[in-house]
Amino acid sequence: MTSEFTKFACDLIKRAGKRTLTHFRQSVVVDRKDGEDFDPVTVADKQCEYFIRQEIRRKYPSHGIIGEEYDDLVQGRFSWVIDPIDGTRAFISGLLHWGVLLALCDEGQPILGLMYQPFTDELFVGEPDGSWYSRHNKKTTLNTRNETDLPSATLMTTDPRLFREKSQSRSYQRLENSVRLTRYGGDCYQYAVLSAGSIDLVCENQLNPWDILALIPIVLNAGGSITDWRGGDPTKGGHILASGSCELHEAALEVLDYHD
Amino acid sequence: MTSEFTKFACDLIKRAGKRTLTHFRQSVVVDRKDGEDFDPVTVADKQCEYFIRQEIRRKYPSHGIIGEEYDDLVQGRFSWVIDPIDGTRAFISGLLHWGVLLALCDEGQPILGLMYQPFTDELFVGEPDGSWYSRHNKKTTLNTRNETDLPSATLMTTDPRLFREKSQSRSYQRLENSVRLTRYGGDCYQYAVLSAGSIDLVCENQLNPWDILALIPIVLNAGGSITDWRGGDPTKGGHILASGSCELHEAALEVLDYHD
Repeated sequence: MTSEFTKFACDLIKRAGKRTLTHFRQSVVVDRKDGEDFDPVTVADKQCEYFIRQEIRRKYPSHGIIGEEYDDLVQGRFSWVIDPIDGTRAFISGLLHWGVLLALCDEGQPILGLMYQPFTDELFVGEPDGSWYSRHNKKTTLNTRNETDLPSATLMTTDPRLFREKSQSRSYQRLENSVRLTRYGGDCYQYAVLSAGSIDLVCENQLNPWDILALIPIVLNAGGSITDWRGGDPTKGGHILASGSCELHEAALEVLDYHD
Repeated sequence: MTSEFTKFACDLIKRAGKRTLTHFRQSVVVDRKDGEDFDPVTVADKQCEYFIRQEIRRKYPSHGIIGEEYDDLVQGRFSWVIDPIDGTRAFISGLLHWGVLLALCDEGQPILGLMYQPFTDELFVGEPDGSWYSRHNKKTTLNTRNETDLPSATLMTTDPRLFREKSQSRSYQRLENSVRLTRYGGDCYQYAVLSAGSIDLVCENQLNPWDILALIPIVLNAGGSITDWRGGDPTKGGHILASGSCELHEAALEVLDYHD
Protein backbone atom coordinates (compact mmCIF):
# COMPACT_ATOMS: atom_id res chain seq x y z
CA MET A 1 0.00 0.00 0.00
CA THR A 2 2.80 2.39 0.90
CA SER A 3 4.52 1.96 -2.43
CA GLU A 4 1.43 3.08 -4.34
CA PHE A 5 1.33 6.20 -2.16
CA THR A 6 5.08 6.75 -2.63
CA LYS A 7 4.85 6.55 -6.40
CA PHE A 8 1.92 8.99 -6.46
CA ALA A 9 3.63 11.40 -4.05
CA CYS A 10 7.02 11.40 -5.85
CA ASP A 11 5.41 12.16 -9.18
CA LEU A 12 3.16 14.84 -7.66
CA ILE A 13 5.84 16.69 -5.68
CA LYS A 14 8.11 16.87 -8.73
CA ARG A 15 5.37 18.29 -10.93
CA ALA A 16 4.35 20.75 -8.19
CA GLY A 17 7.96 21.75 -7.48
CA LYS A 18 8.72 22.53 -11.08
CA ARG A 19 5.83 25.00 -11.09
CA THR A 20 7.50 27.05 -8.35
CA LEU A 21 10.53 27.65 -10.60
CA THR A 22 8.61 29.94 -12.93
CA HIS A 23 8.56 32.35 -9.95
CA PHE A 24 12.09 31.70 -8.66
CA ARG A 25 14.47 34.66 -9.08
CA GLN A 26 11.69 36.66 -10.71
CA SER A 27 9.86 39.68 -9.36
CA VAL A 28 7.29 38.03 -7.10
CA VAL A 29 4.37 39.51 -5.25
CA VAL A 30 5.28 39.52 -1.57
CA ASP A 31 2.31 39.74 0.78
CA ARG A 32 2.57 40.51 4.44
CA LYS A 33 0.76 37.98 6.61
CA ASP A 34 -0.87 39.06 9.85
CA GLY A 35 1.49 39.10 12.80
CA GLU A 36 4.50 41.01 13.96
CA ASP A 37 7.07 39.50 11.61
CA PHE A 38 7.79 39.88 7.95
CA ASP A 39 6.48 36.58 6.62
CA PRO A 40 6.43 36.51 2.84
CA VAL A 41 3.93 34.39 1.03
CA THR A 42 4.57 34.28 -2.65
CA VAL A 43 2.31 33.54 -5.54
CA ALA A 44 4.47 30.46 -6.09
CA ASP A 45 3.56 29.19 -2.62
CA LYS A 46 -0.18 29.45 -3.18
CA GLN A 47 -0.16 28.04 -6.70
CA CYS A 48 1.98 25.09 -5.69
CA GLU A 49 -0.26 24.11 -2.76
CA TYR A 50 -3.41 24.55 -4.83
CA PHE A 51 -2.02 22.22 -7.50
CA ILE A 52 -1.09 19.54 -4.94
CA ARG A 53 -4.54 19.75 -3.28
CA GLN A 54 -6.34 19.34 -6.60
CA GLU A 55 -4.32 16.27 -7.54
CA ILE A 56 -4.84 14.63 -4.13
CA ARG A 57 -8.59 15.26 -4.24
CA ARG A 58 -8.78 13.74 -7.69
CA LYS A 59 -6.81 10.59 -6.73
CA TYR A 60 -7.85 10.10 -3.07
CA PRO A 61 -11.16 11.92 -2.50
CA SER A 62 -11.62 10.32 0.94
CA HIS A 63 -8.27 11.57 2.31
CA GLY A 64 -7.81 14.64 4.47
CA ILE A 65 -5.60 17.55 3.39
CA ILE A 66 -3.77 19.99 5.65
CA GLY A 67 -1.62 22.78 4.26
CA GLU A 68 -0.10 26.13 5.10
CA GLU A 69 -2.01 28.31 2.66
CA TYR A 70 -5.61 27.03 2.63
CA ASP A 71 -8.23 25.69 5.05
CA ASP A 72 -7.82 22.18 6.44
CA LEU A 73 -9.89 19.34 4.98
CA VAL A 74 -10.24 16.99 7.94
CA GLN A 75 -11.63 13.56 7.05
CA GLY A 76 -10.77 9.84 7.02
CA ARG A 77 -7.85 7.77 8.26
CA PHE A 78 -5.22 9.16 5.89
CA SER A 79 -4.29 12.80 5.55
CA TRP A 80 -1.75 14.65 3.41
CA VAL A 81 0.19 17.55 4.88
CA ILE A 82 1.65 20.17 2.52
CA ASP A 83 4.21 22.94 2.91
CA PRO A 84 4.34 24.27 -0.65
CA ILE A 85 7.61 26.19 -0.11
CA ASP A 86 9.42 25.61 3.17
CA GLY A 87 11.96 28.43 3.32
CA THR A 88 10.02 31.19 1.56
CA ARG A 89 12.53 33.79 2.78
CA ALA A 90 15.36 31.83 1.13
CA PHE A 91 13.19 31.41 -1.98
CA ILE A 92 12.47 35.12 -2.39
CA SER A 93 16.18 35.85 -1.79
CA GLY A 94 17.19 33.63 -4.72
CA LEU A 95 18.95 31.14 -2.42
CA LEU A 96 18.92 27.34 -2.67
CA HIS A 97 18.06 25.99 0.79
CA TRP A 98 14.29 25.58 0.44
CA GLY A 99 11.98 22.86 -0.75
CA VAL A 100 8.47 21.51 -1.22
CA LEU A 101 7.28 19.26 1.64
CA LEU A 102 4.64 16.56 1.49
CA ALA A 103 3.74 14.05 4.21
CA LEU A 104 1.19 11.26 4.38
CA CYS A 105 -0.19 10.62 7.86
CA ASP A 106 -2.04 7.53 9.09
CA GLU A 107 -4.21 8.50 12.06
CA GLY A 108 -1.97 11.57 12.52
CA GLN A 109 1.34 9.70 12.39
CA PRO A 110 3.60 10.47 9.39
CA ILE A 111 4.27 7.22 7.50
CA LEU A 112 5.70 8.78 4.34
CA GLY A 113 7.65 12.03 3.92
CA LEU A 114 9.05 13.84 0.89
CA MET A 115 11.17 16.93 0.35
CA TYR A 116 11.84 18.17 -3.18
CA GLN A 117 14.19 20.97 -4.28
CA PRO A 118 13.17 21.63 -7.88
CA PHE A 119 16.08 23.93 -8.85
CA THR A 120 18.63 21.21 -8.04
CA ASP A 121 16.18 18.38 -8.88
CA GLU A 122 16.84 16.71 -5.51
CA LEU A 123 14.23 14.43 -3.98
CA PHE A 124 14.54 13.16 -0.39
CA VAL A 125 12.06 10.42 0.59
CA GLY A 126 11.44 8.66 3.90
CA GLU A 127 9.29 5.52 4.02
CA PRO A 128 9.21 2.45 6.28
CA ASP A 129 11.62 0.50 4.05
CA GLY A 130 14.28 3.21 4.42
CA SER A 131 15.10 6.72 3.27
CA TRP A 132 16.45 7.49 -0.17
CA TYR A 133 17.63 10.32 -2.40
CA SER A 134 17.07 10.79 -6.10
CA ARG A 135 18.63 13.31 -8.48
CA HIS A 136 18.32 13.20 -12.25
CA ASN A 137 16.66 9.80 -11.71
CA LYS A 138 19.73 8.35 -9.97
CA LYS A 139 18.65 6.83 -6.65
CA THR A 140 20.85 6.34 -3.57
CA THR A 141 20.20 5.33 0.04
CA LEU A 142 20.16 8.01 2.75
CA ASN A 143 22.06 7.22 5.92
CA THR A 144 22.83 9.58 8.78
CA ARG A 145 26.43 9.51 10.01
CA ASN A 146 27.08 7.88 13.33
CA GLU A 147 28.74 10.79 15.15
CA THR A 148 28.25 10.24 18.89
CA ASP A 149 30.56 12.94 20.29
CA LEU A 150 28.96 16.36 20.84
CA PRO A 151 32.27 18.32 20.72
CA SER A 152 32.89 16.88 17.21
CA ALA A 153 29.40 17.55 15.88
CA THR A 154 28.09 20.02 13.29
CA LEU A 155 24.86 21.81 14.23
CA MET A 156 22.44 23.80 12.09
CA THR A 157 19.59 26.18 12.77
CA THR A 158 17.71 28.43 10.34
CA ASP A 159 18.13 31.66 12.29
CA PRO A 160 19.42 32.07 15.88
CA ARG A 161 17.30 35.23 16.30
CA LEU A 162 14.20 33.02 16.44
CA PHE A 163 15.11 31.84 19.98
CA ARG A 164 13.47 34.88 21.54
CA GLU A 165 12.40 33.67 24.98
CA LYS A 166 15.21 33.63 27.50
CA SER A 167 14.83 29.96 28.42
CA GLN A 168 14.90 28.95 24.74
CA SER A 169 17.85 31.16 23.98
CA ARG A 170 19.83 29.78 26.94
CA SER A 171 19.12 26.17 25.97
CA TYR A 172 20.07 26.78 22.37
CA GLN A 173 23.25 28.68 23.29
CA ARG A 174 24.38 25.83 25.55
CA LEU A 175 24.03 23.46 22.59
CA GLU A 176 25.79 25.81 20.17
CA ASN A 177 28.64 26.20 22.65
CA SER A 178 28.98 22.40 22.92
CA VAL A 179 29.56 21.61 19.24
CA ARG A 180 32.49 22.08 16.87
CA LEU A 181 30.74 23.90 14.03
CA THR A 182 27.40 25.68 13.63
CA ARG A 183 25.89 26.82 10.33
CA TYR A 184 22.88 29.12 9.93
CA GLY A 185 20.25 29.31 7.19
CA GLY A 186 18.70 26.07 6.10
CA ASP A 187 14.99 25.45 6.73
CA CYS A 188 14.00 21.99 5.48
CA TYR A 189 17.31 21.56 3.70
CA GLN A 190 19.03 21.09 7.08
CA TYR A 191 17.09 17.89 7.77
CA ALA A 192 17.90 16.70 4.26
CA VAL A 193 21.69 17.06 4.72
CA LEU A 194 21.40 15.51 8.20
CA SER A 195 19.69 12.50 6.60
CA ALA A 196 22.46 12.37 4.00
CA GLY A 197 25.12 12.21 6.74
CA SER A 198 26.66 15.65 6.12
CA ILE A 199 25.73 17.30 9.45
CA ASP A 200 24.83 15.88 12.88
CA LEU A 201 22.22 18.07 14.57
CA VAL A 202 19.35 20.41 13.73
CA CYS A 203 17.83 22.53 16.51
CA GLU A 204 14.85 24.76 15.83
CA ASN A 205 11.80 26.30 17.47
CA GLN A 206 8.50 27.86 16.39
CA LEU A 207 7.81 25.14 13.83
CA ASN A 208 4.34 24.39 12.54
CA PRO A 209 3.25 20.77 12.00
CA TRP A 210 3.51 21.24 8.19
CA ASP A 211 7.13 22.42 8.59
CA ILE A 212 8.21 19.15 10.16
CA LEU A 213 5.80 16.24 9.42
CA ALA A 214 7.34 15.37 6.03
CA LEU A 215 10.86 15.49 7.48
CA ILE A 216 10.21 13.07 10.37
CA PRO A 217 10.07 9.87 8.23
CA ILE A 218 13.13 11.03 6.23
CA VAL A 219 15.25 11.51 9.37
CA LEU A 220 13.99 8.39 11.20
CA ASN A 221 14.30 5.97 8.29
CA ALA A 222 17.82 7.27 7.51
CA GLY A 223 18.85 6.19 11.03
CA GLY A 224 18.41 9.49 12.86
CA SER A 225 16.37 10.66 15.86
CA ILE A 226 13.85 13.48 16.00
CA THR A 227 11.86 14.71 19.02
CA ASP A 228 10.86 17.93 20.71
CA TRP A 229 13.41 19.55 23.07
CA ARG A 230 12.29 17.30 25.93
CA GLY A 231 12.48 14.03 24.02
CA GLY A 232 8.74 13.94 23.27
CA ASP A 233 6.51 13.65 20.20
CA PRO A 234 7.74 15.90 17.34
CA THR A 235 4.58 15.70 15.20
CA LYS A 236 3.02 18.85 16.68
CA GLY A 237 5.99 21.05 15.67
CA GLY A 238 7.20 23.62 18.19
CA HIS A 239 10.75 22.99 19.47
CA ILE A 240 12.48 20.34 17.38
CA LEU A 241 15.79 18.53 17.78
CA ALA A 242 17.02 16.13 15.09
CA SER A 243 20.20 14.08 15.35
CA GLY A 244 22.15 11.62 13.25
CA SER A 245 22.42 9.07 16.08
CA CYS A 246 20.57 8.10 19.27
CA GLU A 247 23.65 8.67 21.43
CA LEU A 248 24.16 12.18 20.09
CA HIS A 249 20.45 12.91 20.52
CA GLU A 250 20.57 11.93 24.19
CA ALA A 251 23.68 14.07 24.73
CA ALA A 252 22.10 17.06 22.98
CA LEU A 253 18.82 16.76 24.97
CA GLU A 254 20.86 16.75 28.16
CA VAL A 255 22.69 19.93 27.18
CA LEU A 256 19.45 21.65 26.07
CA ASP A 257 17.96 20.77 29.49
CA TYR A 258 14.80 22.56 28.44
CA HIS A 259 11.72 23.24 30.58
CA ASP A 260 8.83 25.41 29.36
CA MET B 1 42.23 40.59 -25.10
CA THR B 2 39.71 40.20 -22.30
CA SER B 3 37.62 37.77 -24.28
CA GLU B 4 40.55 35.38 -24.73
CA PHE B 5 41.07 35.47 -20.96
CA THR B 6 37.35 35.00 -20.34
CA LYS B 7 37.15 31.95 -22.57
CA PHE B 8 40.18 30.37 -20.89
CA ALA B 9 38.90 31.18 -17.38
CA CYS B 10 35.34 29.89 -17.97
CA ASP B 11 36.61 26.59 -19.31
CA LEU B 12 39.17 26.25 -16.51
CA ILE B 13 36.84 27.06 -13.60
CA LYS B 14 34.26 24.55 -14.82
CA ARG B 15 36.81 21.77 -15.14
CA ALA B 16 38.29 22.63 -11.73
CA GLY B 17 34.88 22.91 -10.10
CA LYS B 18 33.73 19.53 -11.30
CA ARG B 19 36.76 17.97 -9.59
CA THR B 20 35.53 19.24 -6.21
CA LEU B 21 32.32 17.23 -6.59
CA THR B 22 34.10 13.90 -6.14
CA HIS B 23 34.63 15.06 -2.53
CA PHE B 24 31.24 16.72 -1.97
CA ARG B 25 29.00 14.89 0.54
CA GLN B 26 31.70 12.26 0.99
CA SER B 27 33.87 11.62 4.04
CA VAL B 28 36.57 14.24 3.58
CA VAL B 29 39.78 14.77 5.49
CA VAL B 30 39.30 17.90 7.58
CA ASP B 31 42.56 19.53 8.71
CA ARG B 32 42.75 22.17 11.35
CA LYS B 33 44.64 25.27 10.20
CA ASP B 34 46.69 27.24 12.69
CA GLY B 35 44.70 29.84 14.57
CA GLU B 36 41.94 29.97 17.14
CA ASP B 37 39.04 29.03 14.90
CA PHE B 38 37.94 25.82 13.31
CA ASP B 39 38.89 26.42 9.68
CA PRO B 40 38.49 23.29 7.59
CA VAL B 41 40.62 22.81 4.55
CA THR B 42 39.55 19.84 2.56
CA VAL B 43 41.42 17.70 0.12
CA ALA B 44 39.03 19.07 -2.49
CA ASP B 45 40.25 22.60 -1.78
CA LYS B 46 43.91 21.77 -2.31
CA GLN B 47 43.40 19.59 -5.38
CA CYS B 48 41.20 22.20 -7.03
CA GLU B 49 43.69 25.05 -6.52
CA TYR B 50 46.61 22.86 -7.65
CA PHE B 51 44.79 22.02 -10.86
CA ILE B 52 43.99 25.69 -11.60
CA ARG B 53 47.61 26.73 -10.94
CA GLN B 54 48.98 24.07 -13.28
CA GLU B 55 46.68 25.10 -16.10
CA ILE B 56 47.49 28.82 -15.69
CA ARG B 57 51.24 28.15 -15.66
CA ARG B 58 50.93 26.10 -18.82
CA LYS B 59 48.89 28.74 -20.69
CA TYR B 60 50.31 31.98 -19.24
CA PRO B 61 53.78 31.28 -17.80
CA SER B 62 54.52 34.99 -17.34
CA HIS B 63 51.44 35.66 -15.16
CA GLY B 64 51.43 35.81 -11.39
CA ILE B 65 49.28 33.44 -9.27
CA ILE B 66 47.88 34.10 -5.80
CA GLY B 67 45.77 31.54 -3.99
CA GLU B 68 44.56 30.50 -0.58
CA GLU B 69 46.33 27.15 -0.29
CA TYR B 70 49.82 27.60 -1.78
CA ASP B 71 52.62 30.22 -1.89
CA ASP B 72 52.13 33.32 -4.02
CA LEU B 73 53.83 33.53 -7.41
CA VAL B 74 54.38 37.28 -7.80
CA GLN B 75 55.43 38.32 -11.31
CA GLY B 76 54.36 40.39 -14.34
CA ARG B 77 51.48 42.74 -15.06
CA PHE B 78 48.68 40.17 -14.88
CA SER B 79 47.95 37.92 -11.93
CA TRP B 80 45.30 35.29 -11.24
CA VAL B 81 43.72 35.04 -7.82
CA ILE B 82 42.17 31.73 -6.74
CA ASP B 83 39.85 30.69 -3.94
CA PRO B 84 39.38 27.00 -4.73
CA ILE B 85 36.33 26.59 -2.46
CA ASP B 86 34.87 29.75 -0.98
CA GLY B 87 32.56 28.50 1.76
CA THR B 88 34.44 25.39 2.88
CA ARG B 89 32.26 25.14 6.01
CA ALA B 90 29.15 25.01 3.80
CA PHE B 91 30.91 22.51 1.51
CA ILE B 92 31.81 20.09 4.32
CA SER B 93 28.25 20.42 5.67
CA GLY B 94 26.76 19.26 2.35
CA LEU B 95 25.13 22.65 1.72
CA LEU B 96 24.89 24.52 -1.59
CA HIS B 97 26.05 28.10 -0.93
CA TRP B 98 29.72 27.80 -1.90
CA GLY B 99 31.72 28.16 -5.08
CA VAL B 100 35.06 28.30 -6.86
CA LEU B 101 36.43 31.83 -7.32
CA LEU B 102 38.87 33.03 -9.97
CA ALA B 103 39.91 36.62 -10.69
CA LEU B 104 42.29 38.14 -13.22
CA CYS B 105 44.00 41.31 -12.03
CA ASP B 106 45.79 43.90 -14.16
CA GLU B 107 48.33 45.72 -11.96
CA GLY B 108 46.36 44.56 -8.92
CA GLN B 109 42.94 45.68 -10.17
CA PRO B 110 40.42 42.89 -10.89
CA ILE B 111 39.33 43.14 -14.56
CA LEU B 112 37.65 39.74 -14.79
CA GLY B 113 35.87 37.73 -12.09
CA LEU B 114 34.24 34.30 -12.06
CA MET B 115 32.26 32.28 -9.53
CA TYR B 116 31.28 28.70 -10.33
CA GLN B 117 29.01 26.38 -8.31
CA PRO B 118 29.65 22.95 -9.84
CA PHE B 119 26.79 21.06 -8.10
CA THR B 120 24.18 23.39 -9.63
CA ASP B 121 26.33 24.09 -12.73
CA GLU B 122 25.97 27.86 -12.22
CA LEU B 123 28.59 30.22 -13.59
CA PHE B 124 28.61 33.94 -12.68
CA VAL B 125 31.01 36.11 -14.73
CA GLY B 126 31.90 39.80 -14.47
CA GLU B 127 33.84 41.48 -17.27
CA PRO B 128 33.98 45.05 -18.63
CA ASP B 129 31.21 44.41 -21.18
CA GLY B 130 28.79 43.39 -18.41
CA SER B 131 28.08 40.55 -16.01
CA TRP B 132 26.38 37.35 -17.07
CA TYR B 133 25.14 34.01 -15.78
CA SER B 134 25.29 30.63 -17.45
CA ARG B 135 23.64 27.36 -16.46
CA HIS B 136 23.49 24.25 -18.59
CA ASN B 137 24.98 26.47 -21.36
CA LYS B 138 22.06 28.91 -21.26
CA LYS B 139 23.41 32.43 -20.86
CA THR B 140 21.54 35.42 -19.35
CA THR B 141 22.56 38.94 -18.34
CA LEU B 142 23.07 39.72 -14.65
CA ASN B 143 21.51 42.93 -13.36
CA THR B 144 21.21 44.07 -9.77
CA ARG B 145 17.79 45.35 -8.75
CA ASN B 146 17.42 49.05 -8.24
CA GLU B 147 16.16 49.07 -4.64
CA THR B 148 17.05 52.46 -3.14
CA ASP B 149 15.09 52.29 0.14
CA LEU B 150 16.96 50.77 3.10
CA PRO B 151 13.78 49.80 5.06
CA SER B 152 12.67 47.71 2.03
CA ALA B 153 16.02 46.02 1.47
CA THR B 154 17.17 42.42 1.98
CA LEU B 155 20.60 42.02 3.61
CA MET B 156 22.87 38.99 3.83
CA THR B 157 25.93 38.07 5.86
CA THR B 158 27.64 34.69 6.20
CA ASP B 159 27.66 34.57 10.00
CA PRO B 160 26.81 37.42 12.42
CA ARG B 161 29.15 35.91 15.05
CA LEU B 162 32.11 37.06 12.93
CA PHE B 163 31.54 40.70 13.96
CA ARG B 164 33.53 40.24 17.17
CA GLU B 165 34.90 43.70 17.88
CA LYS B 166 32.41 46.02 19.53
CA SER B 167 32.67 48.77 16.91
CA GLN B 168 32.12 46.25 14.09
CA SER B 169 29.25 44.58 15.86
CA ARG B 170 27.55 47.93 16.55
CA SER B 171 27.91 49.06 12.93
CA TYR B 172 26.59 45.78 11.60
CA GLN B 173 23.68 45.71 14.05
CA ARG B 174 22.61 49.20 13.02
CA LEU B 175 22.50 48.03 9.41
CA GLU B 176 20.61 44.83 10.26
CA ASN B 177 18.09 46.86 12.25
CA SER B 178 17.54 49.19 9.26
CA VAL B 179 16.50 46.60 6.69
CA ARG B 180 13.36 44.54 6.14
CA LEU B 181 14.87 41.07 5.91
CA THR B 182 18.24 39.55 6.81
CA ARG B 183 19.45 36.09 5.80
CA TYR B 184 22.54 34.30 7.16
CA GLY B 185 24.83 31.75 5.52
CA GLY B 186 26.05 32.52 2.05
CA ASP B 187 29.75 33.16 1.46
CA CYS B 188 30.39 33.96 -2.23
CA TYR B 189 26.85 32.91 -3.16
CA GLN B 190 25.52 36.10 -1.52
CA TYR B 191 27.32 38.31 -4.04
CA ALA B 192 26.04 36.08 -6.84
CA VAL B 193 22.36 36.51 -5.84
CA LEU B 194 22.94 40.24 -5.30
CA SER B 195 24.26 40.45 -8.88
CA ALA B 196 21.22 38.52 -10.07
CA GLY B 197 18.89 41.07 -8.41
CA SER B 198 17.50 38.75 -5.70
CA ILE B 199 18.90 40.56 -2.64
CA ASP B 200 20.09 44.14 -2.07
CA LEU B 201 23.01 44.18 0.37
CA VAL B 202 25.92 42.02 1.54
CA CYS B 203 27.86 43.09 4.63
CA GLU B 204 30.89 41.11 5.79
CA ASN B 205 34.20 41.45 7.62
CA GLN B 206 37.44 39.48 7.95
CA LEU B 207 37.66 38.80 4.21
CA ASN B 208 40.91 37.92 2.49
CA PRO B 209 41.70 39.39 -0.94
CA TRP B 210 41.04 35.99 -2.57
CA ASP B 211 37.57 35.89 -0.96
CA ILE B 212 36.47 39.07 -2.72
CA LEU B 213 38.59 39.90 -5.82
CA ALA B 214 36.62 37.65 -8.20
CA LEU B 215 33.32 39.01 -6.91
CA ILE B 216 34.14 42.70 -7.45
CA PRO B 217 33.81 42.66 -11.29
CA ILE B 218 30.64 40.54 -11.05
CA VAL B 219 28.93 43.02 -8.71
CA LEU B 220 30.18 46.19 -10.46
CA ASN B 221 29.38 45.10 -14.02
CA ALA B 222 25.90 43.97 -12.96
CA GLY B 223 25.21 47.55 -11.84
CA GLY B 224 26.07 47.25 -8.14
CA SER B 225 28.50 48.99 -5.78
CA ILE B 226 31.19 47.39 -3.64
CA THR B 227 33.59 49.11 -1.21
CA ASP B 228 34.98 48.68 2.26
CA TRP B 229 32.83 49.92 5.18
CA ARG B 230 34.14 53.47 4.72
CA GLY B 231 33.52 53.70 1.00
CA GLY B 232 37.14 52.88 0.08
CA ASP B 233 38.96 50.34 -2.09
CA PRO B 234 37.56 46.80 -1.60
CA THR B 235 40.43 44.92 -3.28
CA LYS B 236 42.35 44.34 -0.03
CA GLY B 237 39.43 42.48 1.58
CA GLY B 238 38.67 43.23 5.23
CA HIS B 239 35.26 44.88 5.81
CA ILE B 240 33.15 44.69 2.67
CA LEU B 241 29.79 46.22 1.75
CA ALA B 242 28.13 45.37 -1.56
CA SER B 243 24.86 46.92 -2.76
CA GLY B 244 22.52 46.63 -5.72
CA SER B 245 22.43 50.39 -6.31
CA CYS B 246 24.57 53.48 -5.61
CA GLU B 247 21.81 55.17 -3.61
CA LEU B 248 21.36 52.15 -1.34
CA HIS B 249 25.14 51.88 -0.93
CA GLU B 250 25.37 55.49 0.25
CA ALA B 251 22.50 54.96 2.68
CA ALA B 252 24.05 51.76 4.06
CA LEU B 253 27.50 53.36 4.51
CA GLU B 254 25.84 56.17 6.44
CA VAL B 255 24.12 53.70 8.77
CA LEU B 256 27.30 51.64 9.25
CA ASP B 257 29.11 54.89 10.19
CA TYR B 258 32.25 52.84 10.75
CA HIS B 259 35.58 54.07 12.13
CA ASP B 260 38.43 51.67 12.98
